Parts: sequence; C-alpha cells; structure tokens
Amino acid sequence: MNYFSSEFKLGILGGGQLGKMLLSETRKFDIQTYVLDPSDESPCKIACNHFFKGDLTDFETVYNFGKQVDVLTFEIELVNIEALEKLENEGIRVYPSSKTLRGIQNKGIQKDFYKNNKIPTADYEIFQDLAALKIKVANNQIQLPFVWKCTEFGYDGNGVKIIRESNDLEQLPDVECIAEEMVPFKNELAVIVCRNPSGEIKTYPVVEMEFHPEANQVEYVICPARIEEIVAEKARSIALNVSVKFDHVGLLAVEMFQTEDNRILVNEVAPRPHNSGHYSIEASYTSQFENHLRAILDLPLGNTDSKLTGIMVNLSGEEGFVGNVIYENIEKILGWRGVTPHIYGKKQMRPFRKMGHVTIVHENVNEARILAEKVKNTIRVISRQ
Amino acid sequence: MNYFSSEFKLGILGGGQLGKMLLSETRKFDIQTYVLDPSDESPCKIACNHFFKGDLTDFETVYNFGKQVDVLTFEIELVNIEALEKLENEGIRVYPSSKTLRGIQNKGIQKDFYKNNKIPTADYEIFQDLAALKIKVANNQIQLPFVWKCTEFGYDGNGVKIIRESNDLEQLPDVECIAEEMVPFKNELAVIVCRNPSGEIKTYPVVEMEFHPEANQVEYVICPARIEEIVAEKARSIALNVSVKFDHVGLLAVEMFQTEDNRILVNEVAPRPHNSGHYSIEASYTSQFENHLRAILDLPLGNTDSKLTGIMVNLSGEEGFVGNVIYENIEKILGWRGVTPHIYGKKQMRPFRKMGHVTIVHENVNEARILAEKVKNTIRVISRQ
Repeated sequence: MNYFSSEFKLGILGGGQLGKMLLSETRKFDIQTYVLDPSDESPCKIACNHFFKGDLTDFETVYNFGKQVDVLTFEIELVNIEALEKLENEGIRVYPSSKTLRGIQNKGIQKDFYKNNKIPTADYEIFQDLAALKIKVANNQIQLPFVWKCTEFGYDGNGVKIIRESNDLEQLPDVECIAEEMVPFKNELAVIVCRNPSGEIKTYPVVEMEFHPEANQVEYVICPARIEEIVAEKARSIALNVSVKFDHVGLLAVEMFQTEDNRILVNEVAPRPHNSGHYSIEASYTSQFENHLRAILDLPLGNTDSKLTGIMVNLSGEEGFVGNVIYENIEKILGWRGVTPHIYGKKQMRPFRKMGHVTIVHENVNEARILAEKVKNTIRVISRQ
Repeated sequence: MNYFSSEFKLGILGGGQLGKMLLSETRKFDIQTYVLDPSDESPCKIACNHFFKGDLTDFETVYNFGKQVDVLTFEIELVNIEALEKLENEGIRVYPSSKTLRGIQNKGIQKDFYKNNKIPTADYEIFQDLAALKIKVANNQIQLPFVWKCTEFGYDGNGVKIIRESNDLEQLPDVECIAEEMVPFKNELAVIVCRNPSGEIKTYPVVEMEFHPEANQVEYVICPARIEEIVAEKARSIALNVSVKFDHVGLLAVEMFQTEDNRILVNEVAPRPHNSGHYSIEASYTSQFENHLRAILDLPLGNTDSKLTGIMVNLSGEEGFVGNVIYENIEKILGWRGVTPHIYGKKQMRPFRKMGHVTIVHENVNEARILAEKVKNTIRVISRQ
C-alpha cells in the first residue's frame, strides 16, 4: 500500500487537540485525511483534507464517515463501537480495533480484563447503580476511604472521587460504578506503548505525572521519571504486557501507580495519543503522534528514545475567568531556553479547560523541573477583561 | 499585540514547501494565516486559514492580498516589490522589508552591496546583456574559466553556469548577468541568521552543503559542518554582519565558500527559511520555521543550538521519470533509527524537482553521514509505471 501523496485515505474520529497534533504528522507525510467532529470550531477543521461535522456516538454518522476511508482511527474513546464493528466486517481497517476499544471504554470491563489477565491492579468491585454501592457501604463491607469511579463517560478527573465517609456518597450520580481500594502510592507513572499490526512493539520511557491537587488534572509530565531503573523496567514490562493482551494496534498509554513498597499497579489505559506523551514532540526521536501514524499504517515504528529530558506543563483555564482566551506572559516564556508553547486553538476558555501545553527540553531533569515550575507560575490562561 | 488564538492575521506570499513547514508552526501557536499562491495545488492550500490564488508578481494581486493582513512575509523572493513598498507606506508590517528584498532580488545589486559594505565575496563584473560580456571575453579581459550568473529569476542552480571556453557563451540567454571569479574552495557552507525588529539576533551553527555534481542541487546538508572551530566562528561572524548590514528581519540564509586558504567568501543570501535549515526541525531546540515566525512577530528568538547532529538529504525526482509520484523504499528508511522523511505534497514528479527531504539525527556526525548516504541510495522518487 502506498500512503504518501497518494489516493489513500485516513479517517480520524474526533477533531480535538490530539487530532490536530496527529494532523501535523499526516501533513509531514502528505497522507490524505478525513476528520469527523461534532464542532464546527474543532482544532482539526483546517489542516485535514476533508472535514465532516457530526455526532461521534451516532451509528449512522460514524458508519457513513468510515465507509469513505481506508484506515480509520480515533483520538477520543467515546465513539460508536457498533459502527466500528460493522466497518471492520466490511473490510475497513480500524485501529485500535473495536474489540480493543470495547475492553477499554467501560472501566468495569477494563478492570475485569486486568484481573483475568493477571495484570496487577488495585482491588475493586463493580456496582450496577449507586443504591447497590450504598448498601455495601452501610453494611461495612467496603473499607473507607475508597476510590469511586463511574464506569463510562469519565475523563480528566471527571467521574473519579475519593469517598472518605458515607455522606460523600450523596453527591454521586446514580450510574454504574467501581469502588476501588485506595492504595497509598509515591508516584503516578505512565508508559506509552506503540504496536503495529505486524506485531512490532516499542515503549516510550516511563514518565512521572504530577497532578494538580484540586482539578485532578496532570500539571507536569516528566520524562524520564525520576525513579530507580529496576522500577522503570518493571513498569515498561507491565505496559508491554497490557498492550499485547489487548492485542492493541496504535498507541496505548498505560497509567500506573508506584506504591510505597514499589509495586506497580495499572490504573487505566487510553488507546490513543495521550497527554503524558506530548513531551515527545520536542524531546523524542519520534513523537507519539508520528508513531501512532506509523503503527496504524503498519509502517516500521520510530525510535522512542529521548534526545533530551522533556517536561510538559499543561495550560488550563484559570479559575474565575471565562470567555475569549488570552495567554498572558507567553512572550516572556518564549524567551527562555528550550521552552515551546503549543496552543490548541480553542477560542473560548473556562476554568480547567485544556487550552494548550508547554514543553521544556533540557540536558538535566532537575533544572528542567525548576524551569517548568517557573513556566507554570508565569504564563496565565485567562480571558480578556 | 496578541498573536495567539486572536484576530491577528499573518499573510504569507507563496504556498510551497517552505510555506507549508512555516504553517506547521503557525498552527502550533494558533496564529491565523492568509496564503497567496498561483497554484491551486499548492502544498499550503490546506493548513492555512484562508487561501488565495493569484500571481505573486502582479502589483494589484499582492497589494490587495496584503491589505487584509497585519504582518506580511514571503517564502519566495520573486514577489512584487512595489506592492510591498506601498503596503509598508500604508502601515502594514512587511518582514523582511521591501528595502532588504530589493538589495537581494537582483544578484548584481546584491554583489554591489557586499562590495560597498566590505563583506568578503568573489570578484565580479556586471553586464547589461550577453553582447557586452562577449566583447570582454573576446578581448581577453576576463579570465577563463569563470562563473556566469543571471542577475534575476535564477534558483536552485538554474541561472548559474561555469564558462570554461568562449564557445560556452553561445548557450547562455541574453539577459543581465554577472561574471564571477572562480575561486577554488574546499567547502560550501551556510549560516542561518534570525533577527527580530527589536534587534535581537542569533545564528544557527554553520552547516556544510554537499552538492549533486550534475543538478547543482544540494544533496546533503550537514550540521554541524566538519570544519575547524576558528573557521566556523569566522563564518558566523560574517553572517551576522551581513544580516545587520541588510537591516534584515526574519531568517537570512547566508551561503558561503570556504576557500583553500580558509578565507570565507559570501556567495549569496536568501531572506527566508532555507533548504540548508531543514535539519533544524528535528535537530535544533527551535526550528528555523519557528524562529522565522518569532522574528517577524518581534517575539523573543528561540535557542538555535542543536540537540543532536542533523543531516538533511534532499528528495528530488529521478531522471527518466515524470508523472504521479511514488516514494520507493520509503518504508525501508522509516525503519532506521533517527530517520524522518518530509513529503512536500506535490503529486507530480519530474527530474530534479524537489519533492521532499529526509532528516537523519544522530549523536555522531560521521555515523550520521554514513546513514544519510544509505538513505540517499535507498529511497527513490519515481513515477508510477
């Protein structure tokens, strides 16, 4: 198959920032792209070859979109799986596959998958609704505190809550959910795995994620993680295993906890380019987006090693502001060595909305971390007064 | 001025591969772009916000296009200068300025500029037409061999010939031209300078250019050049001086000869992102395209240092082929460490047409050079049979 400057068509479900950064790679290889997104203001609207507006969860919309392309991928998990299945049956290559996505989209099914495949993960129990959970708590059959997660439609910390006392249950929505053991951990880690249909598989280095205490969004992603080599090797090996067990094609971001006693527990996965891999655009030999593209086209995978230490700082909307975005002090941080902002192209900001990120590359991880904090404390994502 | 996700408008004259790679940076910063190009199949047609089809040398077309934007730049020198002048007079910021471009567009004026500013360059004489040159040659007033250059509209080795005997004159077109002393040199070097309106100025490292013997196109660009540090410093200092003397804003690529006796002679300049800086996308802290953008917007310049050695291999159409392009063996080179192809998006190939380039990054320049040659000998830019 000839992909470059040809009639080949790649379809992408979702037109957000992940799609936008993927399009930067399709443009580099001159691969023709079709994008489907519900919003007319999607960051992907320009730079793809053909843009379609439509609902990603609607069977007909996704099916009709997918029928036009040769290979179909997605940059968001919340897409209509039945349409993907039908497309696969009709010969469209869908990567990651509907089967893989089905194992991931519902967090209950995902947890069962880890258990059945002996992949280390925190203990959990699944509840069909809130009432069932409340009964168990009332009967003291679940130890407090625990982590509550809704099984579907959660993202970026939405759909995850720490339940410290039974009163906390009153704020929860009545949906299928998981109660998960709260494991004391010293680090949140992530490993991105890429794998192509021929079975070639590579992992990026282990990264460390530092979270914003309130918003539960990642604030810094640090590559490489400042952990012992033996722990890093264990994390990479578990991530490889997860990818193989899912029979995954494309990128799989595996989020993990490093416990106080140095066990690695898989928290959850994302079957697509991931926030924890944005640093790779500047810091890696091959960015996660290029490797996702290589993987789904069954091309040889690029080198996942780093050229330099990379730290990513998320740019999220500041509390107390809503409206047309401005990036205050962006000129200042542009003057600092190895600092590159990425602006996603959303015109409207609101508190905690992901508007962009900044990458810091440096020879030294500790100096990079200092600079990253300086960046975080300087640039402000606010609205025009 | 707020450039990011705002109403600010950047205009780009020319929609070829240089514009396309520049758009990759405007997308990263979410800066709104307007592009003018004569071709409907321009590589820039997607990824800019607004595309206009029109003649870059036509006064009205360029003027009307420019009136819509806040800052105007170009990715090709052959644009209507009078329109740029009028736009400047009406308050549009044009970078590089019409004055700078006027000093560069005509090679005779450019050579006089070097002479008047005591910038080292090979000796030369300007002739209004071919007849005037022939008389001097007939009278033995010019030493053979010499280098003939037409003063206008030459590019990529077109418009440059080595004249070894008086018979060679018969193949030349009857245009204004230069006869230039043929200086024996050991290396062709280039230095890219970036400078913003506030006067901040930086140079990229000196690169070495290896040329294809027949096509007179650059075959390899090697960064850093394998030359002594003292020569490199001299080259960077001359390049800085050229930029300042031209009062240049944006990127200026300064091509130079290193003579047998280690003198540096300026050959010619290009006031824009340049083939000799493509390696910077993968190898530098800040790519030439990002720095061009930073410079013309008067933002702080990014770090021009390299993360790793970078070598660029041009992908030009192979002799004996014409038509719909295919990149034979591209899958093979994708499997090699640190190898990244860039495909410009031209559907039609013909011999020597620039269709893309490949960057090789490596810790070691000699190993990178071996890999570059392997890339060159593996990938073929041919047409479908």
